[in-house]
Amino acid sequence: MDRKWVYLFKEGSASQKDLLGGKGANLAEMTKIGMPVPQGFTVTTEACNEFYIQGEKLSEEIIEEIKESLQMLEEETGKKFGDVENPLLVSVRSGAKFSMPGMMDTILNLGLNDSTVEGIAKNTGNLRFAYDSYRRFVQMFGDVVLEVPKYLFDNALDSKKEKKGYTLDTELRAEDLKELTKEFKEICKKETKESFPEDPNKQLLMAVEAVFKSWNNQRAVTYRNLYDIPHDIGTAVNVQSMVYGNMGDTSGTGVAFTRNPSTGEKKVFGEFLLNAQGEDVVAGIRTPLSIDKLNEVMPEIYEEFINIANTLEKHYKDMQDIEFTIEQGKLYMLQTRTGKRTAEAALRIAVELVEEGLISKEEAVIRVEPQALDQLLHPKFDEDELKKITPIAKGLPASPGAATGKIYFTAEDAVAAAERGEDVILVRKETSPEDIEGMNIAKGILTSRGGMTSHAAVVARGMGKCCVAGCETANVDERKKTMVVNKEVFQEGDYISLDGSAGSVYKGILKTVDANISGNFEKLMEWADDFRELGIRTNADTPKDAAEAIKFGAEGIGLCRTEHMFFEESRIFSVRKMIISDNLEQREKALAEILPMQKDDFKGLFKVMGQRPVTIRLLDPPLHEFLPTKETDIKELAEDMKVDFTELNDKINSLHEFNPMLGHRGCRLAISYPEIARMQTRAIMEAAIEVSKEENISLVPEIMVPLVGKKEELSILREVIIETAENTKKEMNSDISYLVGTMVEIPRACLTADEVAEYADFFSFGTNDLTQMAFGFSRDDAGKFLEDYKEAGILEQDPFQTIDQVGVGKLVETAVNLGKKAKEELHLGVCGEHGGDPASIEFFHRAGLDYVSCSPFRVPVARLAAAQAAIINKNQLK
Amino acid sequence: MDRKWVYLFKEGSASQKDLLGGKGANLAEMTKIGMPVPQGFTVTTEACNEFYIQGEKLSEEIIEEIKESLQMLEEETGKKFGDVENPLLVSVRSGAKFSMPGMMDTILNLGLNDSTVEGIAKNTGNLRFAYDSYRRFVQMFGDVVLEVPKYLFDNALDSKKEKKGYTLDTELRAEDLKELTKEFKEICKKETKESFPEDPNKQLLMAVEAVFKSWNNQRAVTYRNLYDIPHDIGTAVNVQSMVYGNMGDTSGTGVAFTRNPSTGEKKVFGEFLLNAQGEDVVAGIRTPLSIDKLNEVMPEIYEEFINIANTLEKHYKDMQDIEFTIEQGKLYMLQTRTGKRTAEAALRIAVELVEEGLISKEEAVIRVEPQALDQLLHPKFDEDELKKITPIAKGLPASPGAATGKIYFTAEDAVAAAERGEDVILVRKETSPEDIEGMNIAKGILTSRGGMTSHAAVVARGMGKCCVAGCETANVDERKKTMVVNKEVFQEGDYISLDGSAGSVYKGILKTVDANISGNFEKLMEWADDFRELGIRTNADTPKDAAEAIKFGAEGIGLCRTEHMFFEESRIFSVRKMIISDNLEQREKALAEILPMQKDDFKGLFKVMGQRPVTIRLLDPPLHEFLPTKETDIKELAEDMKVDFTELNDKINSLHEFNPMLGHRGCRLAISYPEIARMQTRAIMEAAIEVSKEENISLVPEIMVPLVGKKEELSILREVIIETAENTKKEMNSDISYLVGTMVEIPRACLTADEVAEYADFFSFGTNDLTQMAFGFSRDDAGKFLEDYKEAGILEQDPFQTIDQVGVGKLVETAVNLGKKAKEELHLGVCGEHGGDPASIEFFHRAGLDYVSCSPFRVPVARLAAAQAAIINKNQLK
Repeated sequence: MDRKWVYLFKEGSASQKDLLGGKGANLAEMTKIGMPVPQGFTVTTEACNEFYIQGEKLSEEIIEEIKESLQMLEEETGKKFGDVENPLLVSVRSGAKFSMPGMMDTILNLGLNDSTVEGIAKNTGNLRFAYDSYRRFVQMFGDVVLEVPKYLFDNALDSKKEKKGYTLDTELRAEDLKELTKEFKEICKKETKESFPEDPNKQLLMAVEAVFKSWNNQRAVTYRNLYDIPHDIGTAVNVQSMVYGNMGDTSGTGVAFTRNPSTGEKKVFGEFLLNAQGEDVVAGIRTPLSIDKLNEVMPEIYEEFINIANTLEKHYKDMQDIEFTIEQGKLYMLQTRTGKRTAEAALRIAVELVEEGLISKEEAVIRVEPQALDQLLHPKFDEDELKKITPIAKGLPASPGAATGKIYFTAEDAVAAAERGEDVILVRKETSPEDIEGMNIAKGILTSRGGMTSHAAVVARGMGKCCVAGCETANVDERKKTMVVNKEVFQEGDYISLDGSAGSVYKGILKTVDANISGNFEKLMEWADDFRELGIRTNADTPKDAAEAIKFGAEGIGLCRTEHMFFEESRIFSVRKMIISDNLEQREKALAEILPMQKDDFKGLFKVMGQRPVTIRLLDPPLHEFLPTKETDIKELAEDMKVDFTELNDKINSLHEFNPMLGHRGCRLAISYPEIARMQTRAIMEAAIEVSKEENISLVPEIMVPLVGKKEELSILREVIIETAENTKKEMNSDISYLVGTMVEIPRACLTADEVAEYADFFSFGTNDLTQMAFGFSRDDAGKFLEDYKEAGILEQDPFQTIDQVGVGKLVETAVNLGKKAKEELHLGVCGEHGGDPASIEFFHRAGLDYVSCSPFRVPVARLAAAQAAIINKNQLK
Repeated sequence: MDRKWVYLFKEGSASQKDLLGGKGANLAEMTKIGMPVPQGFTVTTEACNEFYIQGEKLSEEIIEEIKESLQMLEEETGKKFGDVENPLLVSVRSGAKFSMPGMMDTILNLGLNDSTVEGIAKNTGNLRFAYDSYRRFVQMFGDVVLEVPKYLFDNALDSKKEKKGYTLDTELRAEDLKELTKEFKEICKKETKESFPEDPNKQLLMAVEAVFKSWNNQRAVTYRNLYDIPHDIGTAVNVQSMVYGNMGDTSGTGVAFTRNPSTGEKKVFGEFLLNAQGEDVVAGIRTPLSIDKLNEVMPEIYEEFINIANTLEKHYKDMQDIEFTIEQGKLYMLQTRTGKRTAEAALRIAVELVEEGLISKEEAVIRVEPQALDQLLHPKFDEDELKKITPIAKGLPASPGAATGKIYFTAEDAVAAAERGEDVILVRKETSPEDIEGMNIAKGILTSRGGMTSHAAVVARGMGKCCVAGCETANVDERKKTMVVNKEVFQEGDYISLDGSAGSVYKGILKTVDANISGNFEKLMEWADDFRELGIRTNADTPKDAAEAIKFGAEGIGLCRTEHMFFEESRIFSVRKMIISDNLEQREKALAEILPMQKDDFKGLFKVMGQRPVTIRLLDPPLHEFLPTKETDIKELAEDMKVDFTELNDKINSLHEFNPMLGHRGCRLAISYPEIARMQTRAIMEAAIEVSKEENISLVPEIMVPLVGKKEELSILREVIIETAENTKKEMNSDISYLVGTMVEIPRACLTADEVAEYADFFSFGTNDLTQMAFGFSRDDAGKFLEDYKEAGILEQDPFQTIDQVGVGKLVETAVNLGKKAKEELHLGVCGEHGGDPASIEFFHRAGLDYVSCSPFRVPVARLAAAQAAIINKNQLK
């Protein structure tokens, strides 16, 4: 067999991840491009497999190669294993192809024994350091390699401190540590019945074996199962010479980013400590210095470091997070990896890397996390202030942004307070369409029930308004107008603050910082637009929302919910008259009152949208949602409407439904009362014709029939709509075009999409309802068990947030395939909440939709996600 | 072209339906087997197509053939078109391949004109008859051929009667009719600007053209669209010489069945009138005589008729419904068709035809309508009494049977009254599980809301108890204890009667007749069992229901709903304690109280069922269904349970759901509270082990997990069940087998059935819920719009009654295919309401299920339907 089992760092490269593992390949790559990496070698993943083939034993061949490599390492470093004068110490770390954090601990300072420790003490001039390193080594080796229970070492350490009267580990003196090391070794001997190995060579082989064995420990196996990592690829072992930053004033250690991770500015950003180890930086006992200062202290090292930073960035083509150590005037690079950054920085870096010619626009677009854009578009709390306090409660991060205000428990009270000029937080058990006005004037919304797609969450996201939903620890009593959190009672008018991005609720007032959109944002969005194939529309019901969405790049309206318009105070009266009508004549009279108002709404929308497509959904919710439920309200309504209270009450009761989600709503209303569809069609057509004439533009309204499950529903309503539309056109002497389509949100519609497509110009998937019905989950009630489901591992994600591709996705794909088969030119979109979720957008791209539609503030997220989906899929096809 | 356009009756046969249409082929067939049919000819469907090809004109060739055939007809009958002495009169009727009733009116007496009418008058010696025939002919011809508006004739008739001071048509004398005929002809002239055609030949050709044109009238096109009849097959026209039964005392007319249609007895059954026309029999002015009397009046004709009846029955191999006319001592057969019959007769005839060697057992099984068996198994009202009264209200025929009793509005009152010995009808807005005991003691159940699969309907069918549901005209006030129907107020204790087979509600007491099951029933069922491939199980929760089902032939229990057991008075208290428990310990304590009761229930079931399979579903409904909702009841419960009212009330409120159908129920309960599943598993296993030891039998309980949508739900609960079952087996020292499966009722489960099947020994389709979710219909609320949907032609059937094959069926098929692919030995059944519906059973047979399960009284229906499905499908494969 002439396989090579061990590679020196300088023999490998980044492309050998299979053989050398991720870490080994990276160390080799850095070595290859001339970085001053503490040298070492990697025992390959193949050696790991061989280890198992040989019955968990290192073969002679492998041992031989390790020894050879060690010898070369000794030559290179001028240090020697077990040498008292100048001992070589190494770290031993596992490193599989895929990162498996926490699978195995690292062993540092391997090579120490009772002799070499003295050499280290002499060389560093620091006895305490030497023995601290030694006792740490014994502890790690004992734990990881010898499998001595950890608590035995902890107990010994504690009793030592107790005996000496110390509280902190740092109080331990050199002498104490020397004693402790001895005690640790005795613990090991007692547990293993063998002396602690003094021979560094033996230590090394034992450590390598331990790492290989760790590949199949329970933790690692579970981890691989969880992340679908194959069990037969093995792990590599990296053996690297130790360097120390605490060897006097020409030594030091630090971390740096090649660009500013907060702002993205192109300037190395970081800090360092002289005469210190990495853990000193982390511990925060000494205050580190800015990396700039290094220029003053060691100008040559500084220059070398900056060059290295630039080289690394150019090599990896991204901002790097670098760990380095200076050992006695010599710079070593310990690690480099892609640096984490804020959304703002991510944008700037991506754009500037393109301008610098380092990456392509395609790569820049891929680099920015779409979800992160949300941070940029909403106000947030001052981060420094946040650090000082803890939330009083946690709910679901239903709609991002930050808000502070006085709490009110009813929409009426909220509106009144807002009119007094107060900042209002609307607090409800859950919201209903009756609360729309209160939500509209509120700075933020807090509900104690409901999930990520509850009414409150959906509407708030549509409004771009901060919302924390399903905050179950907040006990809301709307009658008493109190909210109790952990026994603390909040009254009407008390201040709270909401962080909708985190789902946090704070007591009192918190300072907010405004959203900050830069030119980089615009630039990246433009690039994204060039790559994406999906159109991006928005869900908007008002000219205000529509204008906002256009600002964010929306190309049309994918969903205008006409019912939100019904709730306005000036028209709810007519709507209610329409509902409680006993006959067609009464109903048509009431509808005639609503018609001019609806028309005005649509005119407003069309004016804002211009020639962009606008999809308007016909009335969807069950009629009882428009009626009051409390006896006093019903009495009031009866008086207003001059009808008998009992009769009105009976009527309202007769509209009660056990499962309104599965009840008399959507197109079912229009089948029962086609006059409603006629009124709405007329309002849409009159508005479209008038605006197209006034503005001299050509616009094509899209009329959408909701909740279709059988083709007959659509064929009947299509006829009603076309008849009304054609009459309106004739009356107004117009030849305007329009489309009639359907919202596909009923499983049956997906399964029979070929039939439905015959009567549809377009499909718009309503994946909220589709998810409800495919799973049999009510989104208003699922909060009761979704947590149990996540805990039990049944659901990884809330299926109302990210589409369930296996089940619900199958329905979407079926509908796309059948629909396209029946009608090739069928236009396809999605207007459910998933239209703004990046993972779902990727799916919709692959499913072959034409556009996604989402709430205005999600539009940039969707644009970016759509671009990424297109790029990723294009690259996969290559 | 040498196509033949016209066929004399004696030239054709039954096999030529494509060419001659259904009616023409049948007349030809009767002629062929020597029946004395009034002769005539058929203009073919090809002639119809040719008519359209020629631009709606009869070609010369066709006209020529018609003339030739007419001539042959004249020769045969000895009558002549337009002859004053002995004129030939004919009827002209359309007749397509498929029956299209009402597509076109018939034209009778064609050939009459001002001359021939006198010949008829002379021959019949009845002037009035002659002119009545004439004016009818002009009216029909005017309407159908000349397209003169019908109301013009009606107006003329009315003003004639008014002028003469008559009220009835029969008061019109010969002279009046003669005048009327003249007026009718003037109307035709005025409308068509042409004289009414006097030439019989012209009349005939015009009539043939009119029939051909009628093929494409709106009514006919719509009809064909509705019933999927091709538009290009055309219609034939039948021209048949008229015969008259009113030509004196040697003439007559009658109808007869070859066997008794009520009892099935093998004896010609029918009636006739001397010197009368068919319409005289129908009008009921003269009382017809029994067919036996014919033997006395015209013994030769009687003998001929009996021979013909026997010949026809043997020829068509089924009981025939025959129309005949005797014209001046000569017998003519006008029509023969398969006779309608009662269920009892159907059974007897089918069985006896087999015994007579006329049909095979297979044919006998196919002949009996499964649905009709329902009539036999339930009591019904005396038919004579029913004729005398009309229902006060109509609801849905939710569960068949008849019941009379005093009305009570609460389960408690009903139980109390039953204990006093009263016959009770339970009247509710809708029932809930709390009403079970009241339903159990009631003779019948009436609800004002809910559909065919509402709680009341499902439970009543399960109990085999008469139920009328969704009777919306009955305004039920449970507090006032009144029911108002058409302003009439019914108080507690008033008598009403329910016909559950018709959905009728009657005032007062009606006499009922008991069910009557004969030996023929047993015999046919045995034959059915030989043919069917589907197993038949029953849905039963109690030993009583189970025993009943076995009597009807059930082979196992496909669904035992454990929650029905929870409502019994003796245990609901423990159940409620379990539900309001704050922690696991409390909950387990309460469950421990329920365990022995559940175990007893299961022992009872197992004892009745013996070694037959029993599938037990774990707790399914949302917990709040077990808790009271009224404040007084909650207070009472709080006192009983010694808990704080407010706390209890809060707990109950916190369990409230917006859409309980999509809420925290089914396996979701067991995921949240596995201890419930553990208790139920233990109860099942202990019961099974004890019964199998006591009775020394081997039984294999089937434990069913409801409402699974993701495989993870089932994998987790399967583990819980198996662990508990194995522990129980160990404790009780048993090696009993058991199965763990799932109810497939969530669309997602169907779409991912391959994944779910990994953890299931069996699937049982819950097509109620599957229908709810595939359509997005709540079965409790759908009543509000299902009627609108049927009216609009969107739904032909209630999808909760007959499975929607296109949509829901696709989900079932997907699940069957995926499930079988993943696990070939997977056992498949259905336990939704559809399991007792013949059309659905046919589908389940084709889908490849192993069994269907239905309520006990539906078991015979299911057995027969399953046999028919097997036979039909086998024959189709041939």
